[in-house]
Amino acid sequence: MDGVNLILLDQRDDWSSGEVTLVDARAAHLLTVLKVTRGDTVRIGVLDGPLGIGTIAATADGRVTLRCAFDAGLPPRPRVDLLLALPRPKVMRRLWAQLAALGVGRIVLTNAERVERHYFDSHILAEASFRPLLVEGLQQARDTRLPLVTIHRQFRILVEDHLDTLFADGVRIVAEPGAAMTVSGALEGLGDRRVVLAVGPEGGWNTFELELLRAHGFRQAGVGCRTLRVDTACTALLAVVHAAIEEHR
Amino acid sequence: MDGVNLILLDQRDDWSSGEVTLVDARAAHLLTVLKVTRGDTVRIGVLDGPLGIGTIAATADGRVTLRCAFDAGLPPRPRVDLLLALPRPKVMRRLWAQLAALGVGRIVLTNAERVERHYFDSHILAEASFRPLLVEGLQQARDTRLPLVTIHRQFRILVEDHLDTLFADGVRIVAEPGAAMTVSGALEGLGDRRVVLAVGPEGGWNTFELELLRAHGFRQAGVGCRTLRVDTACTALLAVVHAAIEEHR
Repeated sequence: MDGVNLILLDQRDDWSSGEVTLVDARAAHLLTVLKVTRGDTVRIGVLDGPLGIGTIAATADGRVTLRCAFDAGLPPRPRVDLLLALPRPKVMRRLWAQLAALGVGRIVLTNAERVERHYFDSHILAEASFRPLLVEGLQQARDTRLPLVTIHRQFRILVEDHLDTLFADGVRIVAEPGAAMTVSGALEGLGDRRVVLAVGPEGGWNTFELELLRAHGFRQAGVGCRTLRVDTACTALLAVVHAAIEEHR
Repeated sequence: MDGVNLILLDQRDDWSSGEVTLVDARAAHLLTVLKVTRGDTVRIGVLDGPLGIGTIAATADGRVTLRCAFDAGLPPRPRVDLLLALPRPKVMRRLWAQLAALGVGRIVLTNAERVERHYFDSHILAEASFRPLLVEGLQQARDTRLPLVTIHRQFRILVEDHLDTLFADGVRIVAEPGAAMTVSGALEGLGDRRVVLAVGPEGGWNTFELELLRAHGFRQAGVGCRTLRVDTACTALLAVVHAAIEEHR
């Protein structure tokens, strides 16, 4: 529970009385890391619900009871969605928490020529594996909005049949090292639309894939001409997209 | 040798004849991953020297001989320097290659109130440990310019006595989550000056440290209000700074 800046409640918890009692790793974190005592306050949130403040009402035997006060509204859903060619399981494992911390609305994982098929068999694509990692990222970044995750084994069917449902009105950009247009340039006049960022596999999209993306409205945009590891590239690009959204607000 | 997009030569190699023979992991990478044969070309570079093209002149017994043709000039030194409160050894280990891949001129590691002193005893701060990781990042990003690294155990002495030597004419910004000014805003009118980016420890700089940085010309700038892990934050911020440098060129 390193980097927990928010205690997230979810469907396991019952706060209908205005109080909730925690007994798991969250309680241990409050007691042993934050060393809370009665009357202290901590930031809380409900998964896909509001943020708020919890006041420690009682602590005993590794249990912590919080009195909950929630904000009126939900935090906004992050305005970027990610279309990502599935990276190696080791890289994907590292990515989940980072993506949730940086803020993405949707994570759409896809096949591509340069994605090895056995990557799709990894247990890291099971919801039971990745959901705790996404929650870790939300708790780091003080957000409650769990990214929506879908996994697509056929790139062409994804792009031709499902893209418009998944990303209704987003501005579409595909990251290419050395692209002439910057991300900021590609997002000029964005207004309040969403952004879809496509990131290819190690070795890049092939010509067919790039052409299909282009035919479906993706414009190439880059951040310099350095070739980055997929996880570094995702973090770098999402940060630049978020900065451009702020700028063109 | 995952993600090797460039074969880097260094002082161990002799290419004075116009040819160089490799026998180590680089030769193994050429033979077993790239599967090169006579006449193939690969990207090469000299550490802190020019980029170029190597033509395979011979392969035998795990050895590869390359005929070297180098560019006339050096790649430019990345225009960003990083002043970083030393993170935990585990995080620092992950960071070296990422920093070199993203591109930094200098990496200046410093103490701060929220840095634990024993972090400075980690072997990951020995040049023999971090240099191969920096080289790995350069080979990933196709750069030859090794970041200059210095380690400072006293924050105040660093800022008061050494900053102007280390960062002569750079525009100075300190990353603060939730800062009103964006990185792009802070770098308006940058021209061809360098940028120094200061990134604090988990938990942030303390008031004295922020005040000292401010008194030495650092302006606060942020990318949104999400709190990120130090390694994610470094990648995100360096990417945004590089994008802003492009934009204000």
